[in-house]
Amino acid sequence: MEASVKITGIGSYIPDTIATNESFISNRFLNEDGSEIKDPNPIIIEKFKAITGIKARRYIEKNLVTTDIAFFAAEKAITAAKIDPETIDYVIVAHNYGDVKYGSNQSDTVPSLASRVKHLLQIENPRCVAYDVLFGCPGWLEGVIQANAFIKAGMAKTCLVIGAEALSRVIDPHDRDSMIYSDGAGAVIVEKTEEAGGILAHDTVTFTRDEAHFIYFDRSNHQEQNDKIRYIKMYGRKVYNFALTNVPLAMKECLEKSGVNIKDIKKIFIHQANEKMDEAICQRFYKLYDMEMPEGIMPMSIGELGNSSVATIPTLLDLVYRNKMEGHKIEKGDHVIFASVGAGMNINAVVYQF
Amino acid sequence: MEASVKITGIGSYIPDTIATNESFISNRFLNEDGSEIKDPNPIIIEKFKAITGIKARRYIEKNLVTTDIAFFAAEKAITAAKIDPETIDYVIVAHNYGDVKYGSNQSDTVPSLASRVKHLLQIENPRCVAYDVLFGCPGWLEGVIQANAFIKAGMAKTCLVIGAEALSRVIDPHDRDSMIYSDGAGAVIVEKTEEAGGILAHDTVTFTRDEAHFIYFDRSNHQEQNDKIRYIKMYGRKVYNFALTNVPLAMKECLEKSGVNIKDIKKIFIHQANEKMDEAICQRFYKLYDMEMPEGIMPMSIGELGNSSVATIPTLLDLVYRNKMEGHKIEKGDHVIFASVGAGMNINAVVYQF
Repeated sequence: MEASVKITGIGSYIPDTIATNESFISNRFLNEDGSEIKDPNPIIIEKFKAITGIKARRYIEKNLVTTDIAFFAAEKAITAAKIDPETIDYVIVAHNYGDVKYGSNQSDTVPSLASRVKHLLQIENPRCVAYDVLFGCPGWLEGVIQANAFIKAGMAKTCLVIGAEALSRVIDPHDRDSMIYSDGAGAVIVEKTEEAGGILAHDTVTFTRDEAHFIYFDRSNHQEQNDKIRYIKMYGRKVYNFALTNVPLAMKECLEKSGVNIKDIKKIFIHQANEKMDEAICQRFYKLYDMEMPEGIMPMSIGELGNSSVATIPTLLDLVYRNKMEGHKIEKGDHVIFASVGAGMNINAVVYQF
Repeated sequence: MEASVKITGIGSYIPDTIATNESFISNRFLNEDGSEIKDPNPIIIEKFKAITGIKARRYIEKNLVTTDIAFFAAEKAITAAKIDPETIDYVIVAHNYGDVKYGSNQSDTVPSLASRVKHLLQIENPRCVAYDVLFGCPGWLEGVIQANAFIKAGMAKTCLVIGAEALSRVIDPHDRDSMIYSDGAGAVIVEKTEEAGGILAHDTVTFTRDEAHFIYFDRSNHQEQNDKIRYIKMYGRKVYNFALTNVPLAMKECLEKSGVNIKDIKKIFIHQANEKMDEAICQRFYKLYDMEMPEGIMPMSIGELGNSSVATIPTLLDLVYRNKMEGHKIEKGDHVIFASVGAGMNINAVVYQF
């Protein structure tokens, strides 16, 4: 039997600081063109919650940067996997903005966050290769797919794959979309094993013809501000339509590659982008098989944790794995789908058996 | 016979704007602690040239960013490889600072530069996956190693690997080391082929225990400046000693894996970091085999082009391949070594047969 690639340890870091929707009550929200929004803030916030399902999000402490929380999650994943960190062949960190210090607007990416995490983990083995992957929100899952490639190519046996992001450091206070974004980190150890299951199939697509700049970096909606500072920005409606059209197809493609019957899928771990969008994606996915979406198939953490980009899936996985999500559990042998979509525009999916 | 992975097209972009050493004559250079440097600028510049071999470097035009020059190099590599861009499975862009607009100090990394390049290349195929790798100066060579893994794992046949950097956008005018840095881009197409040769062996190491922050991001040497802007910084002496100790060993390890006799090595394409350091590395490498470094083994472009980070090796390769470096040429069947060292601290090497 061919060796399989399995997740043998999961860890996550959820920042303590809770920013509720009410914390935005005094923001001066403006349209993209700088014009005033007619609704008062309580209505803006209520509408936001109805669409995204987000009631609160988490922000890292002022003294921390993305590397720190990547390290916290990594430590837990290593402990959970019960491995000697010196046996790790790759440290892969997915992020999008590097380390941005509180009060700064500069991304620090040299050395790579992976090198910094390896340093903090005190791993000495120089054969443990540390690099960062930039791939939008699907970066963590793409890191897992890359780790799988290294294992299949005989270049690695054990990889640490981390998704960490502090979006609180790059948000425009005058943009309603800023309420979506959150901070967090999740990590897994993936290992070559003789056990059955693991990564059964994976699929990745990058759409750039019209879509490359759907999520981008630009100036504040407050156009009278004479600084040139740029922030995370997106064309929300375009992202929504793009995701609804293309994510279900990528999931189906991946499921077909895996040979697993859709009825055997126990959970779908989808990137926590927007509650309504995620639900619509999964409904469409099942519709491709003329099925109704099964109840309880899709654990959702976005309501309390917001959208922490690369960190949402491993964090959600960690919560379910440790029985912290009521009504959700994973058992050995269960088949699941991981799926993500984000800046690039990138989409990926993995069919996985525990 | 097992399929091999070969470079089938090379392209590079060398910016037109030449910044000679004389262009630094009016800079106010300061020590790291902010103290004045006793030597006058002509002496500082002369010493700099004696150590690094650098007489000039290239800067991109004000209207360009790293993505643009990555695209220029990529176009040439695709043309040289005579492939349909729609057949490319991966666009991998190695860089370290993202797109930094002229006059700005913010790195723009969303979407990934790879997505932007794919967009500019007008590649429509969504199965062409575009991502960025951050791995210090060895990022381009690591991208080649990753492409090789994807091909070996059956996930790809054709990959575009680009190294592009505009260090002119992140340099501190009060730091002598700023004279090292340059801008540029180089790209290759690597393909699965039934031909003999190609990538015969590769080796990568990441040293982070003491070394992680040898190359880093910090404030100007001009300490009275009350802004918090940070720039590329390094502990030059530490980098030098680290490279001299470890790069020859990594090259030897890689050569031994390849089974190629050192006497069959025709050229060494080493990251253009510093002329004296590069020469010392190669001398030490040959010394490990009780040999003198053969004359003409090491084409060097640093004198005229400076250190453009991830771009130096593919640019140098392109120059030699197109017979633009007097006294250097490559012929089919030739064995060469690629080697790089940089922020991380990372080192990698590839033994390759054309």
